[in-house]
Amino acid sequence: MKIRALAMILMVIFLGTTAEAKVVTRSVAYEQDRVQLEGYLAYDDGVTGKRPGVLVVHEWWGLNEYARGRAEQLARLGYVAFAVDMYGKGKVTRHPEQAGAWAKEVNSNVQNWQKRALAGLEVLKREPLTDTERIVAIGYCFGGATVQQLVYSGADVKGVVSFHGSLLAPPAELGKQVKAKILICHGAADPMAKPGDVERYTAAMEKSGLDWQLIIYGGAKHGFTNPDADKAGMEALAYSKSADQRSWADMQVFFKEIFALP
Amino acid sequence: MKIRALAMILMVIFLGTTAEAKVVTRSVAYEQDRVQLEGYLAYDDGVTGKRPGVLVVHEWWGLNEYARGRAEQLARLGYVAFAVDMYGKGKVTRHPEQAGAWAKEVNSNVQNWQKRALAGLEVLKREPLTDTERIVAIGYCFGGATVQQLVYSGADVKGVVSFHGSLLAPPAELGKQVKAKILICHGAADPMAKPGDVERYTAAMEKSGLDWQLIIYGGAKHGFTNPDADKAGMEALAYSKSADQRSWADMQVFFKEIFALP
Repeated sequence: MKIRALAMILMVIFLGTTAEAKVVTRSVAYEQDRVQLEGYLAYDDGVTGKRPGVLVVHEWWGLNEYARGRAEQLARLGYVAFAVDMYGKGKVTRHPEQAGAWAKEVNSNVQNWQKRALAGLEVLKREPLTDTERIVAIGYCFGGATVQQLVYSGADVKGVVSFHGSLLAPPAELGKQVKAKILICHGAADPMAKPGDVERYTAAMEKSGLDWQLIIYGGAKHGFTNPDADKAGMEALAYSKSADQRSWADMQVFFKEIFALP
Repeated sequence: MKIRALAMILMVIFLGTTAEAKVVTRSVAYEQDRVQLEGYLAYDDGVTGKRPGVLVVHEWWGLNEYARGRAEQLARLGYVAFAVDMYGKGKVTRHPEQAGAWAKEVNSNVQNWQKRALAGLEVLKREPLTDTERIVAIGYCFGGATVQQLVYSGADVKGVVSFHGSLLAPPAELGKQVKAKILICHGAADPMAKPGDVERYTAAMEKSGLDWQLIIYGGAKHGFTNPDADKAGMEALAYSKSADQRSWADMQVFFKEIFALP
């Protein structure tokens, strides 16, 4: 009881500090294969010392306000978050055709796709605040598929969360270094998944021997975490407040396990 | 900051109290359709006043130590838990054939099956400690299917969690009173689910308009939450520590949402 009370009082002090602290953000320029990239770093300056790092991979729209906002949310949770740039500095759009073209430029070659993501991971690792032993990656839509590729590349991340990303089966031969835990957050009404995709993915993952979980949210369409999803004028996309809140909570439970948080 | 600190200090006092409180349990005899039943009630006597109630429905083995243990765990979380008896007083077995026969006696008639579960729900509702506005039900294996039937019956529960229960599609016509939220915790390696079951279930649930989520745990077989699963000598059954811990955490996130806990 005494130790418990002491721990709780320390928590009061700790939470009191962070509640008044500020989230600091800054752009970080970097390069991969001669492409100029610019990501977005966010952390809480009220937290001292190294902390777990979270890589954030944007939707096919590019590194927009939405992805930056997620990095800031993660900073408020006490992480150091880096929203990567998968396309090139300033390449952000609201037009599905342009978005599709940029996504294709990157993901049509799996090795380049992985390298582009790994370049962002290196930026997060170099950040002095990052506890390099405790890094995870999350991604949305195109970014959800990207973080799955990051796992398959054997990247040194402890886990990844894909929100409305494709259900990307692993390659037949996986390197032994592939160990990251996988959480897939999927909308039951996402028309970008074809009939049979869930069962095919499940079967492929079971063969892989990887540590994986798949959550299907009833009624949720593609883009269910993004409040602007409906503005794109695409039938396939819609925001779902319940699936957004649930998947964010599910992500935190996953982080808690990975980082062995109390 | 001041209010937050005060809240935390109150939490210290509160947690201090419950940490030293005892879980009280007792058998409760009841009857349904002339069948003598005996369930098991558990609550923490260090918590005062009414609290949310959780109905626990046992596996096909009957109301055994495992189901009682879950009721006790829920009591330690602050709920009043009632482990129902779906078979009849003392009907507990370790033999799959006997278990199958008893399960069939109950579930071969959907209306009787629902009535048997509803009789248990009534016991929990009559318990003075139960906040009757905040009741959920959880179930394992046969009990997982049972709590889904409870939803379809229109029972007054806020939500249900099925652990390695069948994926039970709702009837084509659902009453308007059917509103409980559904969380299905399913093992990817559960051979009791046939190929196509997940997609069929998903399609049926999407038509139903109900609030539902399905979590698939990679590598988990049938009975993944029960540490004794492997002792049954059945190929289909195995305990999975990770899927057990994850599904228990997922259940708590679900309760948190339903009961609007902080």
